[in-house]
Amino acid sequence: MKISEIETPAVLVDLDVMERNLARVAQYARDHSLRLRPHTKTHKSPVIARRQLDLGAAGLAVAKTGEAEVMMHAAPKEILVAYPVVGHRKLERLMGLAGSTRISVALDSLAAAHQLSGAARAHRREIGVLIEVDLGLKRVGVQPDEAAAFAKAVARLPHLRYEGVATYPGHIKMMDETGLAAVKTLSNSVESLVDRLSAVGLRPEIVSGGSTPALYHSHHVAGMNEIRPGTYVFNDRNTLELGACARHECAATVLCTVVSTAQPGQVILDGGSKTFSSDRLATGADAGFGEVVEAPQAVFTKLMEEHGFLDIRRCGRTFDVGEQVHVLMNHVCVVMNLHEQVYGVRQGVVEEVWKVEARGKLQ
Amino acid sequence: MKISEIETPAVLVDLDVMERNLARVAQYARDHSLRLRPHTKTHKSPVIARRQLDLGAAGLAVAKTGEAEVMMHAAPKEILVAYPVVGHRKLERLMGLAGSTRISVALDSLAAAHQLSGAARAHRREIGVLIEVDLGLKRVGVQPDEAAAFAKAVARLPHLRYEGVATYPGHIKMMDETGLAAVKTLSNSVESLVDRLSAVGLRPEIVSGGSTPALYHSHHVAGMNEIRPGTYVFNDRNTLELGACARHECAATVLCTVVSTAQPGQVILDGGSKTFSSDRLATGADAGFGEVVEAPQAVFTKLMEEHGFLDIRRCGRTFDVGEQVHVLMNHVCVVMNLHEQVYGVRQGVVEEVWKVEARGKLQ
Repeated sequence: MKISEIETPAVLVDLDVMERNLARVAQYARDHSLRLRPHTKTHKSPVIARRQLDLGAAGLAVAKTGEAEVMMHAAPKEILVAYPVVGHRKLERLMGLAGSTRISVALDSLAAAHQLSGAARAHRREIGVLIEVDLGLKRVGVQPDEAAAFAKAVARLPHLRYEGVATYPGHIKMMDETGLAAVKTLSNSVESLVDRLSAVGLRPEIVSGGSTPALYHSHHVAGMNEIRPGTYVFNDRNTLELGACARHECAATVLCTVVSTAQPGQVILDGGSKTFSSDRLATGADAGFGEVVEAPQAVFTKLMEEHGFLDIRRCGRTFDVGEQVHVLMNHVCVVMNLHEQVYGVRQGVVEEVWKVEARGKLQ
Repeated sequence: MKISEIETPAVLVDLDVMERNLARVAQYARDHSLRLRPHTKTHKSPVIARRQLDLGAAGLAVAKTGEAEVMMHAAPKEILVAYPVVGHRKLERLMGLAGSTRISVALDSLAAAHQLSGAARAHRREIGVLIEVDLGLKRVGVQPDEAAAFAKAVARLPHLRYEGVATYPGHIKMMDETGLAAVKTLSNSVESLVDRLSAVGLRPEIVSGGSTPALYHSHHVAGMNEIRPGTYVFNDRNTLELGACARHECAATVLCTVVSTAQPGQVILDGGSKTFSSDRLATGADAGFGEVVEAPQAVFTKLMEEHGFLDIRRCGRTFDVGEQVHVLMNHVCVVMNLHEQVYGVRQGVVEEVWKVEARGKLQ
């Protein structure tokens, strides 16, 4: 299949670039003796998860039980649900998986821990727990000074296996001097956290962190021994803007077709918010909804559901209805979640098509 | 099934409210002799489309060929693709439908018209065309002074049936004095457009307009004889903020579970941008990503992919992990597109569950 035969809008992945991204992170993890547990929320595909495992990933990370179910098709040795699993039915489903693979959950409340323990007991399973600790993002996670007491309470619950600590340093974004200073602060926080836990006899076996922006600085974080990056497989405009990847490491784009040129100075693409999401750049920069690879001077000013608005006044050229362009998206994780399938392309030829199987698995 | 048995995050629709919304618009259209061709992009479900047809809708409107394919399950007498269909394969698929129902396309370029004519000729079909005219939104559509020439060129092409005009008055938002003045301006524009077309012997049989915000003012637009509202079936926070519906007319909410209360003054819900989209209010107001029905003082300040951040400092109460809340979403159309199914609820009981069958049908 040729690219010209693909119906748009469609997500294209340059397989050479993706494979280099996968190999590079696998090598980095090996070089620094870090367990790699890639977060599958980015690609939502067992096909890609399997490649990550084949390259040495210890297991997979997911956000939802439904994603864990789909990722079983990749036959991972272990799955971490890096999200508190709350609610009877979800826990029942999770227990259903625990017979086939090793399941762990990251959580930050006794309520969630009690529910998990109860479900595990009912099913005679043992479920791993990473206590989630907040080291700066202020999203989920107990505070560091509560971590030891919380870990003790969790470790005491039947059918739970205390494994260590999870944290998500998503507050470390831009890989400039500020970012590097934040990595240093994180390192101190992790070191002190490990000390606190060790002092109560709960030295963490796993200290799990790592997001794509700060990925390659993970080995500077004393005590961290696992990383859970997601976006690195494809990268996107965010990763690029944050200085966390180079342009030639961006593997995914959305192929769009020009469907209207009726307004002077404007082009309408057949991809809007249902194709790209409405995510702006994570830096907060007012820089539109994507970058047109063939015309970087075009400004992707606005989105409606099925309409992408390009201001082409600075392009020095016009576009024709039917012409196709590749758009580098702001945030690849939410884009993948909007598409049913992905076209894997190598040197201009569609080599494979895979389904985004965990798309929409919100529960 | 009880609401408490639903796994979250999940879209709930109050069936009583939805049925009143459907009936009210059907009645309005009848009262004013307006053809109703509801846009199915909002619900993306043939089940709901069928109800619209049963209540008197003349046909359905869709944005994409893939949506048209799904909507065939509702057995409509006609489908308008209210979007330029560009590209050989999409046109082939569209021709495949033209044997079973009457197909029309709204378009604004000769390139799209030529492609459509060519495909129709190859398949020995006749396809209706509405010429898309821009009356203020500046999205797609030829300018009014180009409309007559464009209509003539389209009407001349073989296998196309010139049916009239489509316009989308999406620039009319807030239903205040400014909005009503804009409706008056629209009316003048439509009247003059019909005159221009009639002057060249192309009096439009169909003059199609109508979006949800200005819906109930459609009969004030001289010459407009068809409306294509979508959002009215459920309404949302946008429709409410724009003054286009009352609170008791909002049928859809997202049921979420509190999964973390670890940060003081903050609650994390299990719905983020993959549940709600990142759409802010259409008015541009900085008023968060949704409204918590049970706690209107909570501010939905931030979204990550699977995390909804509520600032609860003004709530005067706390929340527990496991507690559930209903969230009125900013923009229901993009929310439906993120979910696989919808729970139809009546008086606290789940009466039906339907699939969002056209979800992700972007091509």
